[in-house]
Amino acid sequence: MNELTINLDVSSSVPLYEQIYKYIKKEIQNGGLPFHKRLPSTRNLAKYLQVSRTTVDMAYGQLVSEGYIEAQPYKGYFVCELEGLYHLETQSDGRLSKKEDASVKPKYDFSPNGVDLNSFPHNAWRKLSKNILLEENKYLFRLGDAQGEYELRSTIAQYLRQARGVSAMPEQIVVGAGNDFLLLLLCSMFGTGQKIAMESPTYKKAYDLFCNLSNEVRIVEMDESGMKIDQLMKTDAQIAYVMPSHQYPLGTVMPVKRRMQLLEWASLAPNRYIIEDDYDSEFRYKGKPIPALQGYDRNGRVVYIGTFSKSIAPAIRVSYMVLPESLLDLYKKRGKTISSTVSRVDQMIIANFLNEGYYERHLNKMRAVYKGRHDVLLEELRAFRGICRISGENAGVHLLLTFKNGMKEQEAIEKAAHQGVAVYGLSRYFVGEARAPGQDTVILGYANLPEDEIREAVGYLKRAWL
Amino acid sequence: MNELTINLDVSSSVPLYEQIYKYIKKEIQNGGLPFHKRLPSTRNLAKYLQVSRTTVDMAYGQLVSEGYIEAQPYKGYFVCELEGLYHLETQSDGRLSKKEDASVKPKYDFSPNGVDLNSFPHNAWRKLSKNILLEENKYLFRLGDAQGEYELRSTIAQYLRQARGVSAMPEQIVVGAGNDFLLLLLCSMFGTGQKIAMESPTYKKAYDLFCNLSNEVRIVEMDESGMKIDQLMKTDAQIAYVMPSHQYPLGTVMPVKRRMQLLEWASLAPNRYIIEDDYDSEFRYKGKPIPALQGYDRNGRVVYIGTFSKSIAPAIRVSYMVLPESLLDLYKKRGKTISSTVSRVDQMIIANFLNEGYYERHLNKMRAVYKGRHDVLLEELRAFRGICRISGENAGVHLLLTFKNGMKEQEAIEKAAHQGVAVYGLSRYFVGEARAPGQDTVILGYANLPEDEIREAVGYLKRAWL
Repeated sequence: MNELTINLDVSSSVPLYEQIYKYIKKEIQNGGLPFHKRLPSTRNLAKYLQVSRTTVDMAYGQLVSEGYIEAQPYKGYFVCELEGLYHLETQSDGRLSKKEDASVKPKYDFSPNGVDLNSFPHNAWRKLSKNILLEENKYLFRLGDAQGEYELRSTIAQYLRQARGVSAMPEQIVVGAGNDFLLLLLCSMFGTGQKIAMESPTYKKAYDLFCNLSNEVRIVEMDESGMKIDQLMKTDAQIAYVMPSHQYPLGTVMPVKRRMQLLEWASLAPNRYIIEDDYDSEFRYKGKPIPALQGYDRNGRVVYIGTFSKSIAPAIRVSYMVLPESLLDLYKKRGKTISSTVSRVDQMIIANFLNEGYYERHLNKMRAVYKGRHDVLLEELRAFRGICRISGENAGVHLLLTFKNGMKEQEAIEKAAHQGVAVYGLSRYFVGEARAPGQDTVILGYANLPEDEIREAVGYLKRAWL
Repeated sequence: MNELTINLDVSSSVPLYEQIYKYIKKEIQNGGLPFHKRLPSTRNLAKYLQVSRTTVDMAYGQLVSEGYIEAQPYKGYFVCELEGLYHLETQSDGRLSKKEDASVKPKYDFSPNGVDLNSFPHNAWRKLSKNILLEENKYLFRLGDAQGEYELRSTIAQYLRQARGVSAMPEQIVVGAGNDFLLLLLCSMFGTGQKIAMESPTYKKAYDLFCNLSNEVRIVEMDESGMKIDQLMKTDAQIAYVMPSHQYPLGTVMPVKRRMQLLEWASLAPNRYIIEDDYDSEFRYKGKPIPALQGYDRNGRVVYIGTFSKSIAPAIRVSYMVLPESLLDLYKKRGKTISSTVSRVDQMIIANFLNEGYYERHLNKMRAVYKGRHDVLLEELRAFRGICRISGENAGVHLLLTFKNGMKEQEAIEKAAHQGVAVYGLSRYFVGEARAPGQDTVILGYANLPEDEIREAVGYLKRAWL
């Protein structure tokens, strides 16, 4: 029995049974205990190590359950043949390359993709997560509905009706891991070769994705109300992709009249659809909130896409789309084969986050936070009145500055960067052949900058641009 | 001050400040406290309600942070204009339809998609989740790398090298929410109109997905070693989709020689690729483990796809693919625009699950559990030796029974169902025009049936079929 002289450390935080288990496992793995070798009986080993028999029983039990040893009736415990047994060491390996470099960060970043995470309700989220992960909810680790958990879908349906005027039954809602995925899913449903009308500038990822899947994008011009319907009418597009609540990146809010014209376009031919990407409609600072385009749709032509990326946090990866009833059969045939992309645990956390009132509180808090930043930024930007025009400031968490003093976009970005401030050029959002002639515009997102930092940052922008 | 006569319940579990906050919020929402109305000072309200001033301060603070009231210096607190403020009630609504019916469940279900969740390391998972959700990890709610967290990718790379002989740098790994999503992503990268060789029967979701995105599938026959290479050579396919470790659903294990031939096919023309779907390779009962096809690939032609669906739990929705270096540029150009589909929190839970040794333990435990079930099922199935042939039993968690007594697949399924046992027909996995002539085969998955239930279920199958 000498081979099992285990140095037990009674003062260790590692339980004794686990020390025994680990010792034997290691001995088996390194060959110290050869295959088919008989282990001492639990009684003898307990006596030898001066521990309780239960302790040795637990250690042996763990080894049996992991396939290292086996119990043979009337004979005792024997080391198993280990071929192919998993033995994963976390060793460092020269072949693995070093962590990819993070690029140098600016001191102030007006990223249009920011969110304020200081306001993220961390404790609530943690509590909800803990409650969901109770043993009794073990079923949540089985594969769920490809469309999303019914409970979450019905919670989203209620939220959308109250907050966005969207009319949806849970059966029409598909939950997915991000808007990009939902657009991929839609493309897979519609099939390739669609003619899709888009604005320029637009959400470039959507454009790339449509093109990558062999759809043809028709660029339609915009005015201050959004996509020009008379131009749209002249194209052969069957699908129009729009962001009526707050066009990205221009920030245009489509007025009701234009929405009605767009819906009319869709009704003029069979199988015309509108994809309404409502990515940041939660935040609005001026004028009456306008219900989603989907809410006006009487002909079942709108696919509504929303997300919790902006309103909760980008990394939770939960978006949803509302399909018109006319597309439900197509979804069942061509979309539902793709298993859900959101874990059921995460889905239930979000459902409870909404149902228990956390989302309502969080949205109102965020609106107040963003409104404060919005107001401070607008106030500070008055210094630039002489050299630029502000637009897109009525909603969302970014606005645009268009220079009217001849400063070029790239020049403005570089001068700002020189002062440690990151602003973003509009030109990166142009798609197709369309370019706005002679417009030099930068985007300032303020979601991730506290009010005092906004003041400081604009101070540096003054040095850069004035 | 009469309007703030709040009935405080000191015995309630709801804190006093929250009771005050809720009362005032409700009054504002229902108009009892009109816009611009001045609230009593915190000192006066505290005195009136006989609570501490801190309590009222906290209630007012909450209301300010959610935008219901605002503080005006030297004047006091005033009700804000509420237009558009979120007020989400969780009301039941007649329009929402009832929960979709679950179909009647069989008493014993040999589903090939099952996993054993009784062995799921629930406590470990919960502990890891709790640790990840610490306040200091708040950054995990920002949008992460589209490719997946570097830490997880490097952990997966290590695991794959040790357990599957896959040679991968973290830079080659893309994490995604399920194999279906990764296949969608691949299609989007390769572009539509690809000619893809597949076996029949096969993983039907992959077939549907390829077809929906306008690829052309070439069906190639199989023999007992897998896809026939001479037939493959005669097609115009550029991509071959195979499951060498354990073909789904046939369970064929592709021997090394055939793997080499397949790799040779890929090397014979530029831009030929093999998609190796290694969906359940973790479980193997006979013969030496064969390294993944990817491990033999010297020319960078294999895209390896793996998943934690079978080895941990289906609903966690985490899969990964290893791209050959030759495809990394294409990924950066056409794939990386799709934001990650897995939450960073979930990615870190999995990384820690692997790094802290839980995965190793869990895999070994599951292998022992599944091996036990596999052995019991094989033993019990000896009763059917006279009427059917067993195949696909050397790996994975399902096997096949092919009837040689003239019993039709549908007949076998119905007779089993009549006895309360669900078995699954092979024919549902055939794609294209190909059908195996005169084969009547059912699939029995045993991952989700304990050994005693397997014995009972086979007892009922005897009544059904003998």
